[in-house]
Amino acid sequence: MKIAVLGTGMVGHTLADKLVAVGHEVMMGSREAGNPKGTEWAAQAGPGASSGSFAQAAAMAELVVNATPGMVSLAALSEAGAANLAGKVLVDVSNPLDFSAGFPPSLSVCNTDSIAETIQRSFPAARVVKALNTLTAPLMVDPLRLADGAHDVFVAGNDDDAKATVVALLREFGWLPEHIHDLGGLDVARGLEMWMPLWLRIFVRQPKDKLFNISIVSE
Amino acid sequence: MKIAVLGTGMVGHTLADKLVAVGHEVMMGSREAGNPKGTEWAAQAGPGASSGSFAQAAAMAELVVNATPGMVSLAALSEAGAANLAGKVLVDVSNPLDFSAGFPPSLSVCNTDSIAETIQRSFPAARVVKALNTLTAPLMVDPLRLADGAHDVFVAGNDDDAKATVVALLREFGWLPEHIHDLGGLDVARGLEMWMPLWLRIFVRQPKDKLFNISIVSE
Repeated sequence: MKIAVLGTGMVGHTLADKLVAVGHEVMMGSREAGNPKGTEWAAQAGPGASSGSFAQAAAMAELVVNATPGMVSLAALSEAGAANLAGKVLVDVSNPLDFSAGFPPSLSVCNTDSIAETIQRSFPAARVVKALNTLTAPLMVDPLRLADGAHDVFVAGNDDDAKATVVALLREFGWLPEHIHDLGGLDVARGLEMWMPLWLRIFVRQPKDKLFNISIVSE
Repeated sequence: MKIAVLGTGMVGHTLADKLVAVGHEVMMGSREAGNPKGTEWAAQAGPGASSGSFAQAAAMAELVVNATPGMVSLAALSEAGAANLAGKVLVDVSNPLDFSAGFPPSLSVCNTDSIAETIQRSFPAARVVKALNTLTAPLMVDPLRLADGAHDVFVAGNDDDAKATVVALLREFGWLPEHIHDLGGLDVARGLEMWMPLWLRIFVRQPKDKLFNISIVSE
């Protein structure tokens, strides 16, 4: 599949690397086409990897991953262009973390709305699926590294086919089917994003460099 | 210990039953001293159990449990009386769920504040500890029922001695020490309460009557 990864941060790099590794053609998108973070990534990621502007990446892609920070996601997707997103699966990995008042961050949108729903409203022809925002990047793409994969990931969205496409990608990343939970429509993204404040408080209490995630333990 | 459980709902009943079972003297408090839910509970719960108004319960107690719905907690605690709460550990189990617009509920306070912090500001002489709001009542008091206790509970508060008292109660309930996580100050309650929207979405997707909780899975 031709995939655009929008965002050159740790999450974007990690996802782009894995998507290339499992055989996809990936363009890393950033604000400017010549962004060194993008070109350097493309140079070392090998065949199937390229970089460009947000618009160039979205234009070539069949599926778009929003790996930009939630506070700038709408701006990045606007640069990507509504026409370049229309009809495409748009995987929203972002969290609307607002660090303007330091740590802990607040959420720039929450409770009765979410960044994922904001994106869907702004780009109604995109098929937005919320996924992977609930855990750290190294585990997003390598779930078997922790507890033989016995921890959980969630998807939410209004388009069942789009969700099935995202679930297939998660399977390529190594997620076991019983640990991928479709929680329903895109309004579920509120809960998925509102998990982040607790995640952060657990994170700061964890031993350094120890990855963690949650597991749903059920009777 | 002499303990007041404020609230006659499912959470209040479950906690009051368990507190009596492990040997505490418990008064269930409600808006009116003669509330049948309280008197009936006290009659069947046996020695050590009584019922009364919020104020009567708080007055007799060394430790107070707020098991009222978050939206009415401030009113209930005002009836309990600031003088009756002063210097006492106040375990806040509530969630500020606002069902006025149906399901899913929103939170009446979140993001940069929490019901626990609101309570602490309103009753500065109380020693508020947030705990147990993140899971279903039957598991609060019987953690070994699920996965031999291998799932997690959190405490947060500004008073270390108060937290130690609450952790000791959790141990009496059966919680294993490695599954009780002190996440820091009372502002952590924001994250603990903001977990509820995701909890609810997982809950509605679970098989009926199957209890669940989260486990922090770490390297």
